[in-house]
Amino acid sequence: MPFDLITGAAVIGQSGGPTAVINQSLVGVVEALRGAGAITSVLGARNGVRGMVEGRFVDLASLSVDHLERIAATPSAALGSSRDKPDHAYCERIFEVFERNNVRYFFYIVGNDSSDTCRIINDLSDASGYELRCFHIPKTIDNDLVCNDHTPGYPSAARFVAKAFMGDNLDNASLPGVKIDIVMGRHAGFLTAAAALARQREGDGPHLIYCPERPFEPERFVADIDRVFTEHGRCLVAVSEGIANAEGESIAAMMASSAEKDAHGNVQLSGSGALGDFLANLVKIELTPAGGKPPRVRADTFGYLQRCFPDASDVDQAEARAAGAKAAEVAMSGDKDGSIAIERVSNEPYQSRMKLLKLTDVAAKTKHMPDEFISDSGCDVTAAFLEYAKPLVGELPGMGGV
Amino acid sequence: MPFDLITGAAVIGQSGGPTAVINQSLVGVVEALRGAGAITSVLGARNGVRGMVEGRFVDLASLSVDHLERIAATPSAALGSSRDKPDHAYCERIFEVFERNNVRYFFYIVGNDSSDTCRIINDLSDASGYELRCFHIPKTIDNDLVCNDHTPGYPSAARFVAKAFMGDNLDNASLPGVKIDIVMGRHAGFLTAAAALARQREGDGPHLIYCPERPFEPERFVADIDRVFTEHGRCLVAVSEGIANAEGESIAAMMASSAEKDAHGNVQLSGSGALGDFLANLVKIELTPAGGKPPRVRADTFGYLQRCFPDASDVDQAEARAAGAKAAEVAMSGDKDGSIAIERVSNEPYQSRMKLLKLTDVAAKTKHMPDEFISDSGCDVTAAFLEYAKPLVGELPGMGGV
Repeated sequence: MPFDLITGAAVIGQSGGPTAVINQSLVGVVEALRGAGAITSVLGARNGVRGMVEGRFVDLASLSVDHLERIAATPSAALGSSRDKPDHAYCERIFEVFERNNVRYFFYIVGNDSSDTCRIINDLSDASGYELRCFHIPKTIDNDLVCNDHTPGYPSAARFVAKAFMGDNLDNASLPGVKIDIVMGRHAGFLTAAAALARQREGDGPHLIYCPERPFEPERFVADIDRVFTEHGRCLVAVSEGIANAEGESIAAMMASSAEKDAHGNVQLSGSGALGDFLANLVKIELTPAGGKPPRVRADTFGYLQRCFPDASDVDQAEARAAGAKAAEVAMSGDKDGSIAIERVSNEPYQSRMKLLKLTDVAAKTKHMPDEFISDSGCDVTAAFLEYAKPLVGELPGMGGV
Repeated sequence: MPFDLITGAAVIGQSGGPTAVINQSLVGVVEALRGAGAITSVLGARNGVRGMVEGRFVDLASLSVDHLERIAATPSAALGSSRDKPDHAYCERIFEVFERNNVRYFFYIVGNDSSDTCRIINDLSDASGYELRCFHIPKTIDNDLVCNDHTPGYPSAARFVAKAFMGDNLDNASLPGVKIDIVMGRHAGFLTAAAALARQREGDGPHLIYCPERPFEPERFVADIDRVFTEHGRCLVAVSEGIANAEGESIAAMMASSAEKDAHGNVQLSGSGALGDFLANLVKIELTPAGGKPPRVRADTFGYLQRCFPDASDVDQAEARAAGAKAAEVAMSGDKDGSIAIERVSNEPYQSRMKLLKLTDVAAKTKHMPDEFISDSGCDVTAAFLEYAKPLVGELPGMGGV
């Protein structure tokens, strides 16, 4: 079916918390746009929407294949990111810049908060009659986008979490005690759940896993640890930074001395050890026998290390690249707008393909861990979760013991 | 020169904080003792000196080559570790167990605190006339053993720190702000200094590095960050957990709500985010303009992830294995006791060899970063340090930018 593509510039932006593979998607778009007759230039917006309103663009079409490959293999957002949440006036300013530069194709590599930005800009362009084709390319280590089997960025972060727990399990086994590790994930437990991939042998930790999908009860938490410690002589625990009580109040936010919020209204949970220290002290106090010595309790907060550690999953790298390429391909085949999503075709061997969703299917919605991924106890994951996550993270090192 | 080796069992133990390659040294000893006529059995002591007094041994000679290779490639102490510091009575009990089992060769894979244990046991065996040959095989991520070019365990931990800073530098560049990362190292700054290996391009962080070898002055720290932030629009900082004021008082220990000490008298510095949170709040408060918004300041504490992350340096694995083998070889060639140390032969190409020191050369002494490794500013490392550390950590991924 022949059709006419409007001729103009393409803008690519990256926003929100970076991942280890967000540049794979960037390069995927650039490569797939090469040689497309309708594209007059391929511009990278510095610092997401911020660079768009300020007209700070960089020419991406002129970069060599080698240079692009180096960028693709580099974690974090090569164009720079932004936490801005554009309102109507902000978007008007973006349009002015887009019109002035005859921008007709807009590719935005973002998570669920910023994918809403993509939807708003699309609605405004529709309303103003300016033909602008908007595509959302997903990224988030939280893996919390609806209608996506999983999101680019999650497999690499899950790989880091699994490897960190493999090492910490062995550390905890050699010097037994209670060890609590705080894992990222504001509302969804997928990344915390990935700690379970560290288990290789009988008795391996993490022995307990707390996701934000279940209300967090301090008394139960202490009792769970006491039970495991009595049985194994040690206890390794994975706790999501997003755990909340039955009223939905974030434990970490209650701990934070100064509750700092970003433009999306999210309280800062990472970049502080407060939650881990609180939980470690709680366990130490509650499990100290009368007149006895407190148990050895330690906490680590994995923090920002989870986002950009230079050891990305192979599957993640390939899928992030494919998601960028798919967005460019659908744009060049006449689609007007949409959000790219990963669909799992088979698990053994693992295969996936990219599909196109409506922007409104995804924007500003949050996916949670499904019930079948969380054990009845509420403090572990199921075999179904392991089957889901295992193919994503790539090969993990094999561990041996005496 | 012919000589007679006393016939008996060999005991191998591991103690202190584990590393990614402590099992390489274990396997190095076991392999080098294979077929030695004087050795009646090769026993692994569970949990260091604790297993020795309790007679908890495991037969290591019967393990297959494949099994040993799997153990060697696994981080942490496969035999289990211990924080016990044996006194005279404790050592007497170890002798009883050693005599009962006709243990004549003792290999102890430990850092500087526990190498003193090795020396005490050796002195007691000399005094009691029981012929026991004691060898210390070094391990510590702190790299703080005197007379050693570096210690097994340091290169792998340095590799983790370098890669973590590579990722965090890119993260900080995409969402600019002040980021403070706390790195292990109680008295020596070698591991914190390894953060500098993350720098590949102009402007890359860490922009500031604080080692415990220089007194920490909060006012100067804030002024340094202010200066870098003004110049680069962001600031990535590496801080040793061991920083202390001009009076030698540990800042982390002052922060810790409950100062927990181990048997060696060391206050717990890791396993808590208190130091990072204190420094982040300090910077936030001091650098908030009058009536303005506070800057974006975050802190992460790398914690126990640095010790056992399953991504060991190739050089480290080979040297840790060679150190174990060397101890067994010198024992079998008639040497009575000593401590194995790494000597650097050349830097390009990197080559090292093992040498034998006296136990008293090493035990309970602490090596610090030499002055020529710390910049005159006191908040960075020198080219000499980079030349020293670079060959140890193995190949690091190359990063590219737009």
